[in-house]
Amino acid sequence: MVKRAVFFLSDQTGVTAEALGHSLITQFPGQSFREMTVPFIDSEDKAREAVRTIDAASKNDALKPLVFSTLVQPDLRTIVRDADGLHLDIFDAFLEPLSSELKQQPTVTLGGAHGMSDIDAYMKRIEATNFALANDDGGVSRDYDVADVILVGVSRSGKTPTCLYLALQYGVYAANYPLTDEELETGTLPDFLIEQKQKLFGLTIAPLRLQQIRKERRPMGNYSSAQQVRFELREAAKMFRRYGIPHVDTTEFSIEEISSRILDSTGVERRVRP
Amino acid sequence: MVKRAVFFLSDQTGVTAEALGHSLITQFPGQSFREMTVPFIDSEDKAREAVRTIDAASKNDALKPLVFSTLVQPDLRTIVRDADGLHLDIFDAFLEPLSSELKQQPTVTLGGAHGMSDIDAYMKRIEATNFALANDDGGVSRDYDVADVILVGVSRSGKTPTCLYLALQYGVYAANYPLTDEELETGTLPDFLIEQKQKLFGLTIAPLRLQQIRKERRPMGNYSSAQQVRFELREAAKMFRRYGIPHVDTTEFSIEEISSRILDSTGVERRVRP
Repeated sequence: MVKRAVFFLSDQTGVTAEALGHSLITQFPGQSFREMTVPFIDSEDKAREAVRTIDAASKNDALKPLVFSTLVQPDLRTIVRDADGLHLDIFDAFLEPLSSELKQQPTVTLGGAHGMSDIDAYMKRIEATNFALANDDGGVSRDYDVADVILVGVSRSGKTPTCLYLALQYGVYAANYPLTDEELETGTLPDFLIEQKQKLFGLTIAPLRLQQIRKERRPMGNYSSAQQVRFELREAAKMFRRYGIPHVDTTEFSIEEISSRILDSTGVERRVRP
Repeated sequence: MVKRAVFFLSDQTGVTAEALGHSLITQFPGQSFREMTVPFIDSEDKAREAVRTIDAASKNDALKPLVFSTLVQPDLRTIVRDADGLHLDIFDAFLEPLSSELKQQPTVTLGGAHGMSDIDAYMKRIEATNFALANDDGGVSRDYDVADVILVGVSRSGKTPTCLYLALQYGVYAANYPLTDEELETGTLPDFLIEQKQKLFGLTIAPLRLQQIRKERRPMGNYSSAQQVRFELREAAKMFRRYGIPHVDTTEFSIEEISSRILDSTGVERRVRP
């Protein structure tokens, strides 16, 4: 069966076109697609090359390609519009109503969304990433005074990727601390965490999933045994209740969702917007 | 001066609505906005609460809020559409033409884009993140055999955040190796890198910017001196030329752009799509 070609065209990275296109095509689960991102279309030559690629796919598949586009420059959009595909262009759709509401003509700003127009945002994200790395796993640093949030949970409950995502995406200073066996057994948090109680946020996860994740890391031994995993998760849950720590079960959620839920629940402000 | 309210509404994280909205409002640089994300609108109650928030902003500011929405469920969209704002809804705009081209009614699939419909993608991203952390900074592991790409460059040229972004966003296995003074002086790469030459990708950066970044880390000493920074960057550039390593100057680019350029230039396939 031929998979229909889906193109994400952009004069930048294509991240916006991908996100937009994805959320739309997933509404048609019966269909089968092959997705291609064509980033950095910033010249007429590159626009014409994209047209040739789209036309070739159309001819080859005998199926009209879907073309999600976030090209800003009007002359490039004009070129691309000639390609044989179904064009879904956010600037075509939304720029006019926006312009009329704002009573301003749009300036053609390339790279407005992610460009170095915003060096300050870049630096903030880098600094937040360095913070997350230094304050990972209860490790090297414990700069909890300047943390926006401190994730707590058992080993492999998703703390590290979530902290890194919060840093890279939002510039949020997220530290994480893995609860130790001793803390779980006594049901007591260390003092340096109690002092920061308002910043704590718990991650939990279904026992079977945690076992599966831990087995990939260390197939043998207590670390991934059903008994150990159940003990840790049960005691962590008790601890969250005891200290009134808000928490989320990561089993059903993607990294984006976990991160959004943390910001939503804690009210932590994003330091940058993507 | 009153900043116009901009709302990003979503039944998921809001990342798509934010990306879409951002790329549009940056086309109107004269305006001043205050942005609010309202994620996880998954019930009529939450939809009505969003309407109240939007209406309050409209009344308070005497300026119509902009409302970027990626709500999937038709009943929630109907509720939200009553809010007093300029509605820019990607489903309203694009679902109908898509449906007609695909000859299929859209299924209302919540969380299609980022949900746990895709546990496999989640695991791949986590594993890629673990890989990036283990293979960071020429460190602990050197699992270069399974790497998709190995970033090389001087200290603080942007290697670590880029590797983490490639992992979290695309599930790409990215290692990084900081060129040592000795390697720079002799102009010779270590054997374990030469063996992986086809995977190498260089990052470079403007001397002044690098000095600024390094000074934040260690204000004193040779590490952030103009002389040292210039020496390292000059020798790294020679090395890239000598070994024919493709490279990008990170000075003007965001993490997203650097990552996209690496994928685009190397042809490395994304293991997951966001």
